[in-house]
Amino acid sequence: MKRMFTDCRLVAMHTGIELTGGYQVIENAMIAVENGAITGVGYDLPMDGFECHSLENRLVTPGFIDSHTHLVFAGNRATEFEQRLNGASYQEIAKAGGGILSTVKTTREASIEHLVELAIPRAQSLIRDGVTTIEIKSGYGLTVEDELKMLRAAKMIAKNVNVNITTTLLGAHALPPEYNHNADAYIDIVCNEMIPAAAEENLADAVDVFCETMAFTPAQMSRVFDAALKHGLHIKGHTEQLSNLGGSALAARMGALSVDHIEYLDESGVKALAEHGTVATLLPGAFYFLRETQKPPIDLLRKHQVPMTVATDFNPGTSPFARLTLMMNMASTLFGLTTKETLYGVTRHAAQATGLLAKGQIAEGFDADFAVWNVETPAEISYQIGLSPLHARYLKGMIAND
Amino acid sequence: MKRMFTDCRLVAMHTGIELTGGYQVIENAMIAVENGAITGVGYDLPMDGFECHSLENRLVTPGFIDSHTHLVFAGNRATEFEQRLNGASYQEIAKAGGGILSTVKTTREASIEHLVELAIPRAQSLIRDGVTTIEIKSGYGLTVEDELKMLRAAKMIAKNVNVNITTTLLGAHALPPEYNHNADAYIDIVCNEMIPAAAEENLADAVDVFCETMAFTPAQMSRVFDAALKHGLHIKGHTEQLSNLGGSALAARMGALSVDHIEYLDESGVKALAEHGTVATLLPGAFYFLRETQKPPIDLLRKHQVPMTVATDFNPGTSPFARLTLMMNMASTLFGLTTKETLYGVTRHAAQATGLLAKGQIAEGFDADFAVWNVETPAEISYQIGLSPLHARYLKGMIAND
Ligand SMILES: [Zn+2]
Ligand SMILES: [Zn+2]
Repeated sequence: MKRMFTDCRLVAMHTGIELTGGYQVIENAMIAVENGAITGVGYDLPMDGFECHSLENRLVTPGFIDSHTHLVFAGNRATEFEQRLNGASYQEIAKAGGGILSTVKTTREASIEHLVELAIPRAQSLIRDGVTTIEIKSGYGLTVEDELKMLRAAKMIAKNVNVNITTTLLGAHALPPEYNHNADAYIDIVCNEMIPAAAEENLADAVDVFCETMAFTPAQMSRVFDAALKHGLHIKGHTEQLSNLGGSALAARMGALSVDHIEYLDESGVKALAEHGTVATLLPGAFYFLRETQKPPIDLLRKHQVPMTVATDFNPGTSPFARLTLMMNMASTLFGLTTKETLYGVTRHAAQATGLLAKGQIAEGFDADFAVWNVETPAEISYQIGLSPLHARYLKGMIAND
Repeated sequence: MKRMFTDCRLVAMHTGIELTGGYQVIENAMIAVENGAITGVGYDLPMDGFECHSLENRLVTPGFIDSHTHLVFAGNRATEFEQRLNGASYQEIAKAGGGILSTVKTTREASIEHLVELAIPRAQSLIRDGVTTIEIKSGYGLTVEDELKMLRAAKMIAKNVNVNITTTLLGAHALPPEYNHNADAYIDIVCNEMIPAAAEENLADAVDVFCETMAFTPAQMSRVFDAALKHGLHIKGHTEQLSNLGGSALAARMGALSVDHIEYLDESGVKALAEHGTVATLLPGAFYFLRETQKPPIDLLRKHQVPMTVATDFNPGTSPFARLTLMMNMASTLFGLTTKETLYGVTRHAAQATGLLAKGQIAEGFDADFAVWNVETPAEISYQIGLSPLHARYLKGMIAND
């Protein structure tokens, strides 16, 4: 199947990290696609044997990548939101059965079919913002069986919604109640059972760890990453969200694709990211919803030219926001990212953060995943919330509906 | 036409201002509707002669009221958003042709048909959040003819979207360039020409003034309100948004339905609202988008039992957010309102703020405008963004589609 897309206003993103200045919009561009891959971008490409599709001078960007989500879970935590606003402390909420362990309980009880059914509308909400690829983490099972169930459910979403899924095993998300005061024994299970089982069944592309005082130590994260790397899986971390434990630098040194949250990252940590090519993933939804005040070190990340990604972190406890454009708006409004930085953050840099190196750009050799917009300038995509300016999505060169 | 709605989980809101505690949800309630008005709410109502509709145990709230919007305008200000993030000052943006006067220019140039066409998708976005009534202000015309054009466009939206519209003349929104350094002469036009013309044609239900150092003085606001009251129109103000000029207290004393923004309102101002029955309208979208830090005095408003409303303030410059549930979430997350306060803020209290006293409650004698939700608890409506939990809207007892 050979398809030629004509009359594109193409947002060029293939010239590396450019943090300031305007967009490069190539007017009247053509995109040649063969068997789902881009074989040429430019003017006056030879059209022989190509089926021609005019995009009618609409703006074309790479399909958006939501590089950090917890899309699969059962239950919701609206009551906790309400309790918190009525003045309950985190301890009181936990005592009343709330917090992450309440989601673990409902997710363990749910069938895989039910998990898929619940996740489908969340994925549908994301794709309305031009998303063509979603990263989905496990982490609410916390047993071998339940973590694998979550990963299988994540993969099944792609059978119901026209979107690419990449999966991440997050067995080390929280300490399950069965291992209270025995975190190292639980990490043994993660390393010796979960990771091998997920790798064996090809259920995970990466392994993630929540490294924080109320979760796992850098030493425990390091053990999990060793096991992951031994099984040929990518690694990434939830690090420096609430305190500075040095997890980001450790993850970078071990070759992590990305470190995520990083509100408390310092300059030596930023330098480690720069040195090892690790992406900084910003999650403004959690920052907003938890009413945090410590912002990620944007100026240091710019100074050291660390690529930044913006993702939803969609989850029921700390970021119940299934709109990637809203997260781009928040990254700009709350953290000061330019609209160009947020656009890179959901395309080229998000591809790098997920290890999907054939995605995130419209250039020869890349997958023909793109989003077509009813806008004049790229800034309109994240400026206004509520009215979706998306015209269409294409996956591997084919138009993709819900 | 007599209709009986059965199997309702009804959120009762007819017991006055209750700022704390849980919701009163009446299970298995029935709602009797005759000719668009509610004639009974309760159990075991006589069904003789009624057409019966089961709402299948879904949660039912009054239809939401967005009590403060600037929905009619042409152009967008995405470029300004981008420039601001790239470090441009307000003065630089204004010099480059940005700011409110850029919207005035594009709106003056637009035909009424084009204004309606642009406003329709904005209204459609709002109704997806359960909105059944939208207040729409003029204010980007700033000539008699262009202000009336905006009000006519606002009314025409209801011919295209199934929603109630209430209109507000905001001629005193900004000083038009033609009257530079001559604000009092412009206020003469507002008082002696705009208000009489709008009243004559029945184009406005209320009159609003932007009272601020960069807009109009309390004395000028007072003149506009006098003219409005003389023509039998409601009054309301944009007051205490960026500084404390005493506009809110003055508006309250003159009988304003609501004062809006009020970040800089002090306790004497709050007392004036309490004394005169004026509603406090909170606009967290503008607070968020302008990166303000001074929050409205929520605790004082609670202390003096002033009813609070939450609205989108949808406009291209300072609140480009056409989602009322997102504003409810922001009112909770940024200002600390409980989920019960935000629900009152888009129903009962919003009806009071717009003077639509037959709306905002599900009780005998009220209009049968309601929203039906796929949720367990009311908190879910504003907790999660992206997935719309709306099942259906009813206007005057009839199901309302887009
Ligand atoms: Zn996360
Ligand atoms: Zn306003």
